[in-house]
Amino acid sequence: AIDAARLIARLKALGDTGRDEAGRLCRLAATDADRVGRDLLCAWLGEAGLRIEIDRIGNIHGLWEPEGASGDPVVMGSHIDTVIDAGIYDGCYGVLSGLAVIEAMQQAGFRPSRPLAVVAYTNEEGVRYAPDMMGSLVAAGGLGTDEALATVGSDGTTLGVELACIGYAGTREPGFLRPHAYIELHIEQGPILEAEGTPIGAVENLQGISWQRITIAGMANHAGTTPMAMRRDAGVAAGRTLAFLDRLARETPGAVATVGTIRFEPNAINVIPSAAIFTVDLRNPDEERLKGQEIALDAFLKKLQGEGFEISTERLARFQPVAFAPEIVTAIEASAAERQLSCRRMTSGAGHDAQMIARIAPSAMIFVPSKGGISHNPAEHTDEADLVAGANVLLDVATKLSR
Amino acid sequence: AIDAARLIARLKALGDTGRDEAGRLCRLAATDADRVGRDLLCAWLGEAGLRIEIDRIGNIHGLWEPEGASGDPVVMGSHIDTVIDAGIYDGCYGVLSGLAVIEAMQQAGFRPSRPLAVVAYTNEEGVRYAPDMMGSLVAAGGLGTDEALATVGSDGTTLGVELACIGYAGTREPGFLRPHAYIELHIEQGPILEAEGTPIGAVENLQGISWQRITIAGMANHAGTTPMAMRRDAGVAAGRTLAFLDRLARETPGAVATVGTIRFEPNAINVIPSAAIFTVDLRNPDEERLKGQEIALDAFLKKLQGEGFEISTERLARFQPVAFAPEIVTAIEASAAERQLSCRRMTSGAGHDAQMIARIAPSAMIFVPSKGGISHNPAEHTDEADLVAGANVLLDVATKLSR
Ligand SMILES: NC(=O)NCCC(=O)O
Ligand SMILES: NC(=O)NCCC(=O)O
Repeated sequence: AIDAARLIARLKALGDTGRDEAGRLCRLAATDADRVGRDLLCAWLGEAGLRIEIDRIGNIHGLWEPEGASGDPVVMGSHIDTVIDAGIYDGCYGVLSGLAVIEAMQQAGFRPSRPLAVVAYTNEEGVRYAPDMMGSLVAAGGLGTDEALATVGSDGTTLGVELACIGYAGTREPGFLRPHAYIELHIEQGPILEAEGTPIGAVENLQGISWQRITIAGMANHAGTTPMAMRRDAGVAAGRTLAFLDRLARETPGAVATVGTIRFEPNAINVIPSAAIFTVDLRNPDEERLKGQEIALDAFLKKLQGEGFEISTERLARFQPVAFAPEIVTAIEASAAERQLSCRRMTSGAGHDAQMIARIAPSAMIFVPSKGGISHNPAEHTDEADLVAGANVLLDVATKLSR
Repeated sequence: AIDAARLIARLKALGDTGRDEAGRLCRLAATDADRVGRDLLCAWLGEAGLRIEIDRIGNIHGLWEPEGASGDPVVMGSHIDTVIDAGIYDGCYGVLSGLAVIEAMQQAGFRPSRPLAVVAYTNEEGVRYAPDMMGSLVAAGGLGTDEALATVGSDGTTLGVELACIGYAGTREPGFLRPHAYIELHIEQGPILEAEGTPIGAVENLQGISWQRITIAGMANHAGTTPMAMRRDAGVAAGRTLAFLDRLARETPGAVATVGTIRFEPNAINVIPSAAIFTVDLRNPDEERLKGQEIALDAFLKKLQGEGFEISTERLARFQPVAFAPEIVTAIEASAAERQLSCRRMTSGAGHDAQMIARIAPSAMIFVPSKGGISHNPAEHTDEADLVAGANVLLDVATKLSR
């Protein structure tokens, strides 16, 4: 079994690094705060005697290659970057559990026939640099390394420059490590497992994700003197788009829609906004329905264009739904059964690195319950018993795959 | 007649001061850019031999007290602060025309029985510090000087500190100068005069203004995993409020409504907004209808509260409609008639310093056409002939009132 106390202590210690002046956890990708977290992780990987390899996109690999082990490694991983004002479990739990699994194997004198590795992928959250899951996407060959490094962030910085600044622009070529299999343990970040009282989720697929940035341009004018009929108020047009997307998602089976960021120009109290710039996050487990959401949004924006607004859209991310490797999903169910933990197959609502790595290796995910379904929020919580149970299921599956 | 060429040249020179790196005119109240504009104005006031007096709220007075003149002065004025990315006429036209009128009187050897003054009031726009028309409001006794100086701006600064920084925290007590009458010449900032081909507007009243800052608090959660039915998305609630206010204003006679500024928290692409903070600008020439708009907004926010949102509102400004002094309005009409300029009585859609000074002195305004009704926009434009005609009407009215 994994060392439960150490896993919990490390989760808390990592959760305490990279907080801002207001105490908020803001370990955004490639920031100084991210560096502090990365340094801590590397210290722990080193203590476990793992060989640390960092690739050009900043993915951190800890490799355990004991005598007698050969071939492609069994990889466990996730990410340690966070959103703004995040909880401590999202991502970190999967990385630290992967490390705990290797340490448990070492402790038990287990002699795998394949190497094992734990990976922390760069910029999974996508808050600073789009698309999300960038490090794993690059490792899977879905995006060129140089193109990814040239990404300009929401704060105007360039990822490659920032990675170099924090000392995590590695030299290995992304994808240098080809997983025999990839297993990602993660908090559910949704309400299902807790509501059902089920401690283990065997994730068999993951919904499609569509991210865009939309700019609606109208015309600035005086808030007091401009009759309603003579306005082209970009803010109102954006407000109507938000209300429309919300209604559409409520009417479309499986759909969710979120406008997480917005900005008006010139952003003055008595000036009609000349422009509204906002992001749209659409998701659906069904590709056709996701396409339908995108088409409906396009049609709504066309209607606004007909009213005199200029619209431009920028694609930030587009991932189709992914089906995970059935044999790993089955192995997760088998482990849960042996450990007498109830388990259910499920879909992931969040994007994950496993979604990218699934392009190059058999992959699957293990979920544990999230209290109240809350994530991307400091109130994110999973009970310790659930955290430990999930890590032990990861141990079983990794053992089976590397035996 | 006023010196037309000098007026136009000064308008352009002042319009070229205080531009940002992008070339935008952003002479927001009490900024470094405002100082440059103020310094230029003071230089011109000095050249005309006027006595410059600056009060504690930073209002700049240029006094002409020729021999034989006594009693309260006839005051002409407006403001020289601007919105973000402004045009060059709003405010500056009234101040520079007031100066041109005094210079024309000096030139003509006119011997007024009363002193004349030109005033540039601090922070008329209200973009950096609310409420708008702050300098004239303080001068009229509607807001305590110390309270006004303690105002914290949209950028977190304090007005009193900023005024001191730019060297315009004067020593005179606001209100030290009691106008015998106040006349403000201004561009219309709306479409009526141009549409009608009327060069002069005699402004007989000014609509009521209601400014609030509204905070809608919902709950941050993951954009991918949180089912639509379990969301409290503050951004969507804000979007619905924008659409509601727009609809309401279109249905209410005389009403306009504008949401000029907005901000989401935490403002991340894949996080449901926990809060939306935005300003609301409601106006109506009819006080009862304006109250009706406020009540309808309250009711809408109550409905959102019923859906689980927390709402807080902050009052930024509230001014009732104002009726101007009929004898000055008549004098404006008489001057226009003498000069064979067509003229119409009208309502002001914008707030103006005259609205505040009307509390302590007979006041009125002269409007000239705005091309396309565009203001608070760099495309703001008034033809030179119209600018000169308006300034000459101001000369006539000031002459009459100070004779
Ligand atoms: N797991 C997770 O929060 N990933 C971030 C990417 C996304 O789903 O928005
Ligand atoms: N004239 C003018 O633009 N005043 C600013 C105050 C306002 O009406 O919003």
